[in-house]
Amino acid sequence: MHFTSETSSNGVIERTFTLDEITGVLWSPTSGTVRAPLLLSGHSGGMHKKAPGLVAGALHCVTTYGYTVAAIDAPGHGDRPRNPQDQRWAEAIHRARAAGEPIAPIVIDYNMSLAERAVPEWQAALDDLQALPEIGVETPIGYGGMTLGVVTGMMLTAVESRIAAVSFGGVFVHDALIEAARKITVPVEYRIPWDDEEFDRTSGVALFDAFASKEKTLHAYSGRHYPVPEYESDSSARFFARHLGRAADTVSD
Amino acid sequence: MHFTSETSSNGVIERTFTLDEITGVLWSPTSGTVRAPLLLSGHSGGMHKKAPGLVAGALHCVTTYGYTVAAIDAPGHGDRPRNPQDQRWAEAIHRARAAGEPIAPIVIDYNMSLAERAVPEWQAALDDLQALPEIGVETPIGYGGMTLGVVTGMMLTAVESRIAAVSFGGVFVHDALIEAARKITVPVEYRIPWDDEEFDRTSGVALFDAFASKEKTLHAYSGRHYPVPEYESDSSARFFARHLGRAADTVSD
Repeated sequence: MHFTSETSSNGVIERTFTLDEITGVLWSPTSGTVRAPLLLSGHSGGMHKKAPGLVAGALHCVTTYGYTVAAIDAPGHGDRPRNPQDQRWAEAIHRARAAGEPIAPIVIDYNMSLAERAVPEWQAALDDLQALPEIGVETPIGYGGMTLGVVTGMMLTAVESRIAAVSFGGVFVHDALIEAARKITVPVEYRIPWDDEEFDRTSGVALFDAFASKEKTLHAYSGRHYPVPEYESDSSARFFARHLGRAADTVSD
Repeated sequence: MHFTSETSSNGVIERTFTLDEITGVLWSPTSGTVRAPLLLSGHSGGMHKKAPGLVAGALHCVTTYGYTVAAIDAPGHGDRPRNPQDQRWAEAIHRARAAGEPIAPIVIDYNMSLAERAVPEWQAALDDLQALPEIGVETPIGYGGMTLGVVTGMMLTAVESRIAAVSFGGVFVHDALIEAARKITVPVEYRIPWDDEEFDRTSGVALFDAFASKEKTLHAYSGRHYPVPEYESDSSARFFARHLGRAADTVSD
């Protein structure tokens, strides 16, 4: 992992990094923190590691709870070149949307392919993040994401015992995802945008039901998957604080 | 409305009152508050105005947000005599439970009868509460409740324009309730205890769907309807603070 830039503003240090083909970013408090939990943040399909909603959530967790937050670009997203097959998928989605046809069948295949490639990338990034002196191997780790970030996070959490809590929101449900949910036993907070015609409510509830977690919470909210209401972003941050703790030197809220 | 007792501890004044046959209680901050919202709290079936979960939630809202919280005993509950018909319903529920038979059909009829009687009682209490100088007619008003408290609150909110936001959790769903939900347009937070075999998940989701509110949030959580997880009680208090505001002299959290 090589850090390629470092800036700081409003109490937050932002460092970009590369690791082989992976391009990523790490946010942490300028004050330094003691026992700061690490949050992995998975961006939506078509977005990137610095998507506005992702950054807003990351900064909130850093400044309120003293978290370190890491995000990486999915293959072919953000600063990473897109291969011809991914390009065909992306174009098929645009065509389907323009024609008013359902995009779910294409998105599901595309996201599963991206997630299969992203899981070992997240694991490699996690190895190197844990090797940083300010993080280490004892740090509690959570994962949060939306759409593509949910698919990647579910595949990752199903095989990765280092992840202790997950917060997901808005995803096309299919069999492989239901199967992954059955393997997930850590606390989960899962969101359904209730009025988003792209996301089927019934299959969303079925996915929630499939999580094997002893503690799980479903939040359905009126509205679409973006923007996520501020009270839901806040809830997600509190969910992580409840399960991962917070940096010892941040104040209670 | 006649106040019959007044005690105070830990920054909260508790006053009991009577109003015709109604027995009630009012909690408010000892410090006094400016523009304190009023929260009406409906207890569960078989419980009373000072049920432990209700009191805990009320004290949290008073001490954190400077709210005034009012609760009244349902007919035949708490300090109020039970009439022979209600006594037969209560005994039928006990018999059904003991025999391992479903209680829902009995509870639905019993609760609807109680709610029909409780709605005008809440309205009378509300008239008198608004006549108190520390409350007044400009105060934003919310209603929160569980089980019987949901049925009463839904029937009340469907006909009572003074209620500006409602938080409900755990109820047997039936047609009259779905009909009431269709008349409710104020922001609603609605909870389903996901692992409570007494509450059917599908009809719970259907009830959420029926609310005509522009802003509505469904929270399903692993576990049974009692005890409500602390993070859900906290969420309910934040929901009210979001929609009703908080007393002007309480700190932000």
